[in-house]
Amino acid sequence: MAKQNRMPQNGADYRKRNSKRRYYTYRKASKKSGAVPPMESERVKVSFLGGMNEIGKNMTLFEYKSDMFIVDCGLAFPSAELLGVDIVIPDFTHILNNEERIKGIIITHGHEDHIGGLAYLLKKINIPVYATKLTIGLIKGKLEEHGLLGKVKLVEINPRDNITLGHFNIELIHVNHSIPDAVGLAIKCPAGVIIHTGDFKIDTTPVDGDMIDLTRFAEYGKRGVLALMSDSTNAERPGSTMSESSVGESFETLFRKAKNKRIIVATFASNIHRVQQIMDVAYARKRKVAVVGRSLENLVTVGAELGYLNVPEGILIPVERIRDYADDKILIITTGSQGEPMSALTKIAMGEHRKVSLTGNDYVIISATPIPGNEKMVSNVVNALMKRGVEVIYENMYDVHVSGHACQQDLKLMLGIVKPKYFIPVHGEQKHLVKHASLAESMGMNAENIFIGEIGNCISLSEDGIKQLDDIPSGETYVDGYGVGDVGNVVLNDRKHLSQDGIIVIAATIDSASGYIASGPDIVSRGFVFVRENEELINAIRDIAERVIEEQYDRRYRDWNTVKSAMRDEVTRYVSERTKRKPMILPIFMEI
Amino acid sequence: MAKQNRMPQNGADYRKRNSKRRYYTYRKASKKSGAVPPMESERVKVSFLGGMNEIGKNMTLFEYKSDMFIVDCGLAFPSAELLGVDIVIPDFTHILNNEERIKGIIITHGHEDHIGGLAYLLKKINIPVYATKLTIGLIKGKLEEHGLLGKVKLVEINPRDNITLGHFNIELIHVNHSIPDAVGLAIKCPAGVIIHTGDFKIDTTPVDGDMIDLTRFAEYGKRGVLALMSDSTNAERPGSTMSESSVGESFETLFRKAKNKRIIVATFASNIHRVQQIMDVAYARKRKVAVVGRSLENLVTVGAELGYLNVPEGILIPVERIRDYADDKILIITTGSQGEPMSALTKIAMGEHRKVSLTGNDYVIISATPIPGNEKMVSNVVNALMKRGVEVIYENMYDVHVSGHACQQDLKLMLGIVKPKYFIPVHGEQKHLVKHASLAESMGMNAENIFIGEIGNCISLSEDGIKQLDDIPSGETYVDGYGVGDVGNVVLNDRKHLSQDGIIVIAATIDSASGYIASGPDIVSRGFVFVRENEELINAIRDIAERVIEEQYDRRYRDWNTVKSAMRDEVTRYVSERTKRKPMILPIFMEI
Repeated sequence: MAKQNRMPQNGADYRKRNSKRRYYTYRKASKKSGAVPPMESERVKVSFLGGMNEIGKNMTLFEYKSDMFIVDCGLAFPSAELLGVDIVIPDFTHILNNEERIKGIIITHGHEDHIGGLAYLLKKINIPVYATKLTIGLIKGKLEEHGLLGKVKLVEINPRDNITLGHFNIELIHVNHSIPDAVGLAIKCPAGVIIHTGDFKIDTTPVDGDMIDLTRFAEYGKRGVLALMSDSTNAERPGSTMSESSVGESFETLFRKAKNKRIIVATFASNIHRVQQIMDVAYARKRKVAVVGRSLENLVTVGAELGYLNVPEGILIPVERIRDYADDKILIITTGSQGEPMSALTKIAMGEHRKVSLTGNDYVIISATPIPGNEKMVSNVVNALMKRGVEVIYENMYDVHVSGHACQQDLKLMLGIVKPKYFIPVHGEQKHLVKHASLAESMGMNAENIFIGEIGNCISLSEDGIKQLDDIPSGETYVDGYGVGDVGNVVLNDRKHLSQDGIIVIAATIDSASGYIASGPDIVSRGFVFVRENEELINAIRDIAERVIEEQYDRRYRDWNTVKSAMRDEVTRYVSERTKRKPMILPIFMEI
Repeated sequence: MAKQNRMPQNGADYRKRNSKRRYYTYRKASKKSGAVPPMESERVKVSFLGGMNEIGKNMTLFEYKSDMFIVDCGLAFPSAELLGVDIVIPDFTHILNNEERIKGIIITHGHEDHIGGLAYLLKKINIPVYATKLTIGLIKGKLEEHGLLGKVKLVEINPRDNITLGHFNIELIHVNHSIPDAVGLAIKCPAGVIIHTGDFKIDTTPVDGDMIDLTRFAEYGKRGVLALMSDSTNAERPGSTMSESSVGESFETLFRKAKNKRIIVATFASNIHRVQQIMDVAYARKRKVAVVGRSLENLVTVGAELGYLNVPEGILIPVERIRDYADDKILIITTGSQGEPMSALTKIAMGEHRKVSLTGNDYVIISATPIPGNEKMVSNVVNALMKRGVEVIYENMYDVHVSGHACQQDLKLMLGIVKPKYFIPVHGEQKHLVKHASLAESMGMNAENIFIGEIGNCISLSEDGIKQLDDIPSGETYVDGYGVGDVGNVVLNDRKHLSQDGIIVIAATIDSASGYIASGPDIVSRGFVFVRENEELINAIRDIAERVIEEQYDRRYRDWNTVKSAMRDEVTRYVSERTKRKPMILPIFMEI
């Protein structure tokens, strides 16, 4: 299936030609547009391996002539249907097919949706990794877990520095985000400059370090940018994203309101600036700080070591010692701001934490908003805390959280200074990408110059235009325990079936000489009904099983598949009529 | 465990005595407060069987001397952990223990969380049901499904009418809500008057019928109210709830914006006023209306029959005929505003609906906000619609939805006119109840006169005070298919286990004379790994199984439980080391 599409002519009104698709997206090959565009080899190609139409597992491949490099390699957390799956990573087939052409990978920042798949990739292909100092620090932790440390080349790069990868030259540009040391990229090759913002916000009063390097983005904009790829996470939110430092002011207010209570703050483990602000207020109010939760303890260690977190002398105490201090001399920072069932805050709320027990003199601040899908879990934790008489500050009360992603006003500012010829909204679900595209249009951009992509899409770009090429191999790889990719749809469908109505195993031993049942049939069920209270039902199933074996085995000698299929049908019909449930029926026949 | 508690003295500062518990809630019995309060028989008792610390399965029992009656009998939808469970209803044990004392049940309105458990209750106990006309109409549909129609006494009551049930006299008071014919209750007995608001909002410009009968609430308030039980759903939201008629104005605007597109509106199947407004705008703009989704078709039929829905002559067309009209002459009303996987809108969005196919000329309005927990499902549907090039109006865009529950300002107004001695926030999770309590406090009420309850709590009330008595039997009953209460924790834990890592069945036939394996062991797995690609692992499990049988069977003759237990342990250990997964291990041994 050739999908080599021709770009619509510049200036033509794309909307008139295709009322269903306003943007340049998901276009089927048009047989009529036969003209082969000139100089395909002089164009830059971009392939999307993740992060399009989803928030998670970001991964993009850039290609010019024989050279390729990757930006980011993240993970996604499994949706509810992916029963038992631990994490989801991109399908690396296309990367492995082009192994010798890949010059390296650049990581924009240290969040899981940008680094979480890296170790799995590096097990398959050994390429150098380029990132800023903190990001390299966090990657080292990942590689250590996977036994890869020392086997991979890690290159620390500073913002405004350039990396040369074959025909590509890439400059790192400092951006603000909810983790320090995040960068956007200026990706330069003979076909033109592509600006990739990475995850960003515009923070004019950042807690530590500098404001986003808008000057550099503007300089590229002035010289001419072929395409902009920009973070769409908050494209639905009007206005500008608040500064991280505004949260610090809220903490000051809340610490005053908490008076003589013990304070517990839950936040994202990766948000060093948030942790810094919490510590600073604790220090000012003479509270000791105990850190609870493995990922947060990690962050404090790495952050302090690399100089991103300034821990006042003597402020940290081990959680075992919190009882040695009065309530108003203690601050506990903990993980679990998303209500994750195994997190420290959830265990504390449910009274199951070994080291922290709640009293009515506790004051809990959840410094986060629920990530879509986590709302119910967060509510459950808030309710559980309140049942223990604890005062809880949550959700939008008192501005205890700000986003790390740019809102509409900031997104338009980025578009306005970069002034790209083509615009590719990235890092968002379809609704975010579409909204981001409409923001660009509201600034005068033509819909035809905007590409809304999908995982697996590959486009080529030059001053002549944007073209959609054949899709590349792409998809999701499920990680379950040590298994990478060994859980597929068959296994997931079985898990789904088992989870709804359980299983009935029907086992029988047959004397293959006589054709009679030598033992059984035995009926064993799990997850179906409580057997002791349903003996009559189980007996009826046994009778059916016996009858089916006798009837079917006589007719078709040793054709076990027919017997099994008849048994599944008959037992399913009976059980469904009796109980309105459809457990999995698993017949096992043994011959002697 | 006697939990007979004494009420704190009026005027005493409860907060000082118990810093952990500001409200009168979950109190443990105090041995010191020994004085038995006078005249227990003259007090009115309230027992909570559902709807406290949850939004769902509302059910409350009132008791005075020998007489009892019930208010509402709803269902709750299962949380994600309750795998395979269809609905959750209250535990009826306490009701059945007091069967001969129950004089009847009053239903406040026709939503599932108030009527959804009724048929299950009436199968156990035949008591008269009292409700307004529409509510009775909806109940009839439920009873028909369960084969109960004609077997139960249904009594239609109008607002301001009274029902006498033994010592009780109950007046129905008209309230506004997201379904017509909703009522609150004035529950009168010699111990005093309890006002129960039911689910309510204050709508000064309702679409049909009258504004909430605030006059009647105020009259009771003037005469003196012992206790107020009030809807806490929106206690976290400031201000007043918008009028339902404001949504009609939004529809007019959107229908104009949609121009020549086909319009599809998704909304709650029970919101007759919403459907009325949508039809009215369609009529004004000369669009025919097709109704899609069983529950919505039902509602239109019942609503029109009983006179609650005014369907303009000739406006309805069967969905099969939508192709006979131009896009701008069609409006489709559909279910699925919560993104429910089996709903009409989801099927339409996924391209799986048999009768409605999307084109780029569709304009979809989701006239609802996601119920907490459904956010992700709604997002998925919005994204799917957008991928098909459809314009989608969703969430808080353009005010296409208003709540049916009172916000803070309205809740305070209700408190202010009813002026109860005691306040019992109901119909909410802990965070809603606590917030509602704090609203009452902000109006000058003492914390000690506010009771925050839990399912199973029983209190008695009189002018002397409020007392917490022994808990009553209470809880959740799971309905799965035809089974009511036959799925318990064992079955649910098995389903959970199966859903995460699947099952490995190990079957073997043993010659009981010789002790040798006559057939097998056979290894069959479901939901674990794709077997064909993991033969080596399956073979290793078979080897372990064989070894365990040989070792263990020799040592302990016919002690199958020991063999099974050893096999589970050994196979689990091996599989876990190899795969980091823990499938259920199910050994089945057959003897010949």
